[in-house]
Amino acid sequence: MSDTDLFASAGDDTHAQMMEATYEALRKHGYSELTIQRIGDEFPKSKSLIYQHYDSKDELLVAFLEYLLEQFEADLPIDAEFDDAQEHLETLIEYALPDEFDDDHLDFAGAIEALRGQAPHDETYQEQFAAADEFYRRLTAEVIRDGIEQGVFRDVDPERAAAFIVTTVHGARNQRVTADTDDPVRAARQELEAYVRTRLVADE
Amino acid sequence: MSDTDLFASAGDDTHAQMMEATYEALRKHGYSELTIQRIGDEFPKSKSLIYQHYDSKDELLVAFLEYLLEQFEADLPIDAEFDDAQEHLETLIEYALPDEFDDDHLDFAGAIEALRGQAPHDETYQEQFAAADEFYRRLTAEVIRDGIEQGVFRDVDPERAAAFIVTTVHGARNQRVTADTDDPVRAARQELEAYVRTRLVADE
Repeated sequence: MSDTDLFASAGDDTHAQMMEATYEALRKHGYSELTIQRIGDEFPKSKSLIYQHYDSKDELLVAFLEYLLEQFEADLPIDAEFDDAQEHLETLIEYALPDEFDDDHLDFAGAIEALRGQAPHDETYQEQFAAADEFYRRLTAEVIRDGIEQGVFRDVDPERAAAFIVTTVHGARNQRVTADTDDPVRAARQELEAYVRTRLVADE
Repeated sequence: MSDTDLFASAGDDTHAQMMEATYEALRKHGYSELTIQRIGDEFPKSKSLIYQHYDSKDELLVAFLEYLLEQFEADLPIDAEFDDAQEHLETLIEYALPDEFDDDHLDFAGAIEALRGQAPHDETYQEQFAAADEFYRRLTAEVIRDGIEQGVFRDVDPERAAAFIVTTVHGARNQRVTADTDDPVRAARQELEAYVRTRLVADE
């Protein structure tokens, strides 16, 4: 994923610049030390513009989360050409669980998972994450359904298989940035690939 | 799991009372609105005792996290008698992913996952979660190794299979409290049980 280019197109767009400033401030200070003041320090225009748009840090962060998730979704490998549903599904898994997370990818995933920590006690965050999870589940279920129609996959329950894959991917990405280890990502990727081959792919 | 009894034995123990006060305050206010003042409001003894023990909110919360994880580990079904490793492994999965999360269990998981959101930007939290994840992985790998010795499980890589199971369980519990839905827990449980039967259990 092209996290490196996340804000490459910010240019003079005020909204994109605010989002970039939020990203930088979150990366430097973490959620608990984050203030609008510190976001303002990263913002090239007048701080007062931020206060004109957002009443509180949390209101700004909810907009930021929406922006992050949109970026992630826009970058998903869905429009490329795939030979079949198995290749498509494996590409989706590889995209979310790459062999190595570079620094930009780690910052990006860290920002999302830090905001996720607000969700247990904040319904607005919960709704955003529920919608994002649902988006990945639906996309994954569609690929599995295509595979069943193509005769590539067995006649499994697409929703259940998709929920399982999305949950494992999420768990691995969350552990990657909250426990600072590559092991869960590697194990999840290998076992998910085995799952696709042994549980989903139809016998010849 | 007996979350309901988490603090049943607090009694007059000052440390346990501080932990209980932290739990109540976190439950009511969430991480971002949590202050030592608010923890003190839930504490039956003098607030100054808290300041004597902890210099900052984060120092107190790291102790609290350690306490939570110890409670979770102490309650794990490891000493019970099991017919074989398959039953043991399925009990571990069921314990972490019950059919329904009651309110106490939700509060408990919510508190842990809220603290997990601090980890991307805080090494002390990262180390705690790395140790907790490692504990579950090692325990799960031991059960799988027992199963291989018993001839119940195939000769799989115990570490990899354990990492996969722990990651999926973690992803489902995290989604449960950050996206407010039972679906990922149900799908993860069903597919993990299928994984145990089809990937781990040896053919007769």
